[in-house]
Amino acid sequence: MSTEAQAFVKEIPSKAEHFSDWYTAVVLKAELADYSPVRGCMVIRPYGYALWEGMQRWLDERFKATGHSNAYFPLFVPESLLKKEAEHVEGFAPEVAWVTHGGAEELAERLAVRPTSEAIIMPMYAKWIQSYRDLPVLQLQWNSVVRWEKSTRLFLRTTEFLWHEGHTAHATFEDADRECLTILEIYRQLLEEVLAIPVLVGRKPPSERFAGADNTYTLEALMPDSQAIQAGTSHFLGQRFAKAFGVKFLDRDNTEKFVWTTSWAVTTRLIGTLIMTHGDDRGLGLPPRIAPIQVVIVPILGKKEAEKVLDAARALALRLGTVARVRLDDRDEYTPGWKFNDWEMRGVPVRLEIGPRDVVANQVVMVKRTGGGKTTVALDGIEQAVRDALDDVQQTYHARAKTFRDSHMVEADTLEEVEKAIRDRRGFVKTGWCGDQSCEDVIRERTGASPRVIPLDDAPEGDCLVCGKPSTATMYYARAY
Amino acid sequence: MSTEAQAFVKEIPSKAEHFSDWYTAVVLKAELADYSPVRGCMVIRPYGYALWEGMQRWLDERFKATGHSNAYFPLFVPESLLKKEAEHVEGFAPEVAWVTHGGAEELAERLAVRPTSEAIIMPMYAKWIQSYRDLPVLQLQWNSVVRWEKSTRLFLRTTEFLWHEGHTAHATFEDADRECLTILEIYRQLLEEVLAIPVLVGRKPPSERFAGADNTYTLEALMPDSQAIQAGTSHFLGQRFAKAFGVKFLDRDNTEKFVWTTSWAVTTRLIGTLIMTHGDDRGLGLPPRIAPIQVVIVPILGKKEAEKVLDAARALALRLGTVARVRLDDRDEYTPGWKFNDWEMRGVPVRLEIGPRDVVANQVVMVKRTGGGKTTVALDGIEQAVRDALDDVQQTYHARAKTFRDSHMVEADTLEEVEKAIRDRRGFVKTGWCGDQSCEDVIRERTGASPRVIPLDDAPEGDCLVCGKPSTATMYYARAY
Repeated sequence: MSTEAQAFVKEIPSKAEHFSDWYTAVVLKAELADYSPVRGCMVIRPYGYALWEGMQRWLDERFKATGHSNAYFPLFVPESLLKKEAEHVEGFAPEVAWVTHGGAEELAERLAVRPTSEAIIMPMYAKWIQSYRDLPVLQLQWNSVVRWEKSTRLFLRTTEFLWHEGHTAHATFEDADRECLTILEIYRQLLEEVLAIPVLVGRKPPSERFAGADNTYTLEALMPDSQAIQAGTSHFLGQRFAKAFGVKFLDRDNTEKFVWTTSWAVTTRLIGTLIMTHGDDRGLGLPPRIAPIQVVIVPILGKKEAEKVLDAARALALRLGTVARVRLDDRDEYTPGWKFNDWEMRGVPVRLEIGPRDVVANQVVMVKRTGGGKTTVALDGIEQAVRDALDDVQQTYHARAKTFRDSHMVEADTLEEVEKAIRDRRGFVKTGWCGDQSCEDVIRERTGASPRVIPLDDAPEGDCLVCGKPSTATMYYARAY
Repeated sequence: MSTEAQAFVKEIPSKAEHFSDWYTAVVLKAELADYSPVRGCMVIRPYGYALWEGMQRWLDERFKATGHSNAYFPLFVPESLLKKEAEHVEGFAPEVAWVTHGGAEELAERLAVRPTSEAIIMPMYAKWIQSYRDLPVLQLQWNSVVRWEKSTRLFLRTTEFLWHEGHTAHATFEDADRECLTILEIYRQLLEEVLAIPVLVGRKPPSERFAGADNTYTLEALMPDSQAIQAGTSHFLGQRFAKAFGVKFLDRDNTEKFVWTTSWAVTTRLIGTLIMTHGDDRGLGLPPRIAPIQVVIVPILGKKEAEKVLDAARALALRLGTVARVRLDDRDEYTPGWKFNDWEMRGVPVRLEIGPRDVVANQVVMVKRTGGGKTTVALDGIEQAVRDALDDVQQTYHARAKTFRDSHMVEADTLEEVEKAIRDRRGFVKTGWCGDQSCEDVIRERTGASPRVIPLDDAPEGDCLVCGKPSTATMYYARAY
């Protein structure tokens, strides 16, 4: 590493040694987000927001392709509506921000700033849905929600965060359950194929379900500190909300029935997950499919031929514009070395350097963010070379994350083994579970880990390691964000 | 009109006779929006939200092309920050929704649900901006804001509404003013070229400026009831907010200076403006460039050949998919006549009908939403025919709105003439103005009209019709939303 590079990265702590400080430094230095004057709320800066826009675009296309529409429901939920579903309000009331005054006037009824929108959406569905012909209703909104948090971390846990929340109503149990799984599969593709983050896919035990859900499907990723993170959830709400809010329809058989509903979400927490997974001591690492800038071109300007080199760099940027999201860094107040470090810190997957000799030789120097050093690439066929490099970086990130995750899954047959595995930061610990929460709680208390996920295609084996009864489910435990 | 059509449209009151009821009926019947259980807040339904998404897409592209980035700032503004700019808080405090409790805990400081975000964004700009190299900062956010309203109307005035708010900081007065005008021109194009709504473009008199602005640029449209509506604003904030929040930079000349800032917005009110401008007694009218569905294909299925007709309709939908946003209405529970009325009510610009005889003759029947009856069009070259029809509908809407607006602009030389023109609903009334608010207030009180706009390229003539002093500005008055 050059002296310049050393000076540059010294502000970023070591990922291996000071993971938490490393994380915060990368978020701030790469200008992804910043602290705001409001306790627990963050500002998402343009480069961080561009990551969110990338996820939005990708998801929006798939949601629409599967028949969903965007809509918008009010920010406020009257307290009386929030209270209609008992478990729901019990789960959310402690974290609600309450509006009590409009202008100078005190409100007759307090308004919750939505922590989630079931309680404001269901009354509308009750109004709109009359007949089986009106089903399914497949709507979602992209918005922010507020949950009063005691301790917060940029992207990972903030009082206000961005998400989408899907809310659907169906004629049958089967339709609603199929919807949950369709969404889960879209989320899995986003995580694994776009963000290059491997996930365990399955369902939560009852103790970890969304407040008011009959079943919560989840995607769980493993972070480099061996803690799990919930990357997305899809809730099967059964008929609970339909009954609480009177959402009924006249079926083909001419009888009145309650609808079956679902809700599902991923949040800006995914940005934190992305940063933790792929970053390194040089800063951010971005899989090309989500990177706002995929290729940066840095012209190397000597004293002579500067104009020629700049022209060649501009022509190259134009030419690659149809292949990738390209940025030409022609700022004259920074040296090429400084720019190399800066763009590496910002996680740009591929860098192309072009100097006077490259112009003469009709070539560029290519450097991938994932390593491998400099290679010289002919300008003839540069499009394919860039495409290949981007594919390679995408695959490399996924392969590295998968190797880490797969080497951090252990099986445990005794409580002591679970304890040791968690203490030694071995990652996901696989056990058999009898289905009783009391056994789950024993593990929770002894290890500080929580039950994360029961795999979708579960085939339970052996016995519950707490009570010794036969397993009814395979459970992955981990400490978690 | 057939009996069926008469039955269908009878639920929509006459636009000419009951404009306000007509408006509400169209919004509800076309499923653009609905009332919510929260006083003053609306639900934007998928078809209405699709209009907003169309505007977002169009604007997002232009904002990015002119160097702007999306970001996200907190929903909450601490009371102490809102109070930093005196005029600003005076303007907004009466309409603020206040959060006083987080969970069970009472907050030490009240939090405003943002009515606009200058007061939460400027402290961040103060942190981020140090040098002239950091300027300009060109950021915006797409979000919702809350202003406590006493009386509300769907889209036109609601307690919560959606908008974008741009916030920029510049090194010089000139740069900031140029920014305001760039944005104003983008808004003008959206209004005139996409939404087919002609606007007067100019600036507000001081009495009508945004609270805290040195200058407010505006676009004013005229509705069919002769009331003006503000369609977008771009505020030149001078150095007021920079001084209140300490946003300074070290300039090239090595001296510390305050930045110059702007803010600008259009809101979901534009959807209301669109509805009022182009709708008729059959329902909604949508210019093709904003219509979520541009072409609807209705197969006419007789007892025979139904499958052949459906196949032809499907092939046509596929073929036109690259030319326009197409919907094939193959629902079998409705008659073709019902569908014609339904899609007209929803404002779809072009309808194509295809029946057994059309299949044999290799043709379709085309009907434009703007009138002109049925025409038969050969399938050979249908793409161009559809493009032409969409262009024609777009131009027709614009021409009609412009004819109305141009015939509703009168000049007045005396106070009596202003009074009469406003009373007779003549639209925009053009007068000379000396520049004193007292003269403006006389007209306001005598007529109920407000000063809407001083044209951008103003060349004032004559005298102020209140005081008789020479005019310093041309002013358009109107009653307004």
